[in-house]
Amino acid sequence: MPRITILSVTAAKSKDGDIAALIADYEKRLHWRIEWRELIAKKQADSTRQKSFDADLLRDAIPKGAFCVALDEKGKNLSSQELSTQIQNWQNRGESHLCFLIGGADGLDAGFLKDIPFHLSFGKLTWPHRLVKLMLIEQIYRAQSILDGHPYHRE
Amino acid sequence: MPRITILSVTAAKSKDGDIAALIADYEKRLHWRIEWRELIAKKQADSTRQKSFDADLLRDAIPKGAFCVALDEKGKNLSSQELSTQIQNWQNRGESHLCFLIGGADGLDAGFLKDIPFHLSFGKLTWPHRLVKLMLIEQIYRAQSILDGHPYHRE
Repeated sequence: MPRITILSVTAAKSKDGDIAALIADYEKRLHWRIEWRELIAKKQADSTRQKSFDADLLRDAIPKGAFCVALDEKGKNLSSQELSTQIQNWQNRGESHLCFLIGGADGLDAGFLKDIPFHLSFGKLTWPHRLVKLMLIEQIYRAQSILDGHPYHRE
Repeated sequence: MPRITILSVTAAKSKDGDIAALIADYEKRLHWRIEWRELIAKKQADSTRQKSFDADLLRDAIPKGAFCVALDEKGKNLSSQELSTQIQNWQNRGESHLCFLIGGADGLDAGFLKDIPFHLSFGKLTWPHRLVKLMLIEQIYRAQSILDGHPYHRE
């Protein structure tokens, strides 16, 4: 059973009740151990500095020994089935703690991304931070369902 | 200013208050004319019959003269910028009424899809019906923002 940490960086603490309720709904159905950490980044003078500031915050918060997966539109496009297999493969090779990283509105710093071993894409479209969090927890729940043989996912 | 109809087909009327609130939030910010129609499909004996039944419902509900765009995981992967340009191009060639089609849990019937001129993909991952509706309205709002020169979208 994987342990999963989700680290996200944002400009202000989310007061998004509807998104929070939807996320909680998926969390309730997960027996995988999920921990969220939303990091609040002070506003910087420009996008380059913001990305570098955000990257420092994320880097410091990555749990020791966790295998990191950055959400990145230029990352790998997997099907949900392939993502569940990927999670299974990580577990099989001893990566028992996964850490998903969600950047802020400016995206993730290129230098920081280079240090992250796996980049996962949600397609070419740009999604807002609030939806990405919801989309990620849904895919994690879907992966659990697939690996459990639960009928939630249909091909 | 495009007129947009969103047709979706589902097994039961949505009582999803959190999703509805999030969709309403994007709708409030849209000055494009948006109409939703959620079609309720009676449960059929198997997936093939369900898809055919769903397709009949959708076909009958397509507004006369509307240019149809089916959401289909095997469709075109556009960036948000490209989607906004595509909407602009449709308008420029006189397609003033767009109709987006969202299938049910079994997906859209292959024969029906063949008759739909444009297929839009939200990537290889499978998304639940409830999230697809939210993701679509967000992308429509994002397209409006891009075409209006509003700062919501950042590259």
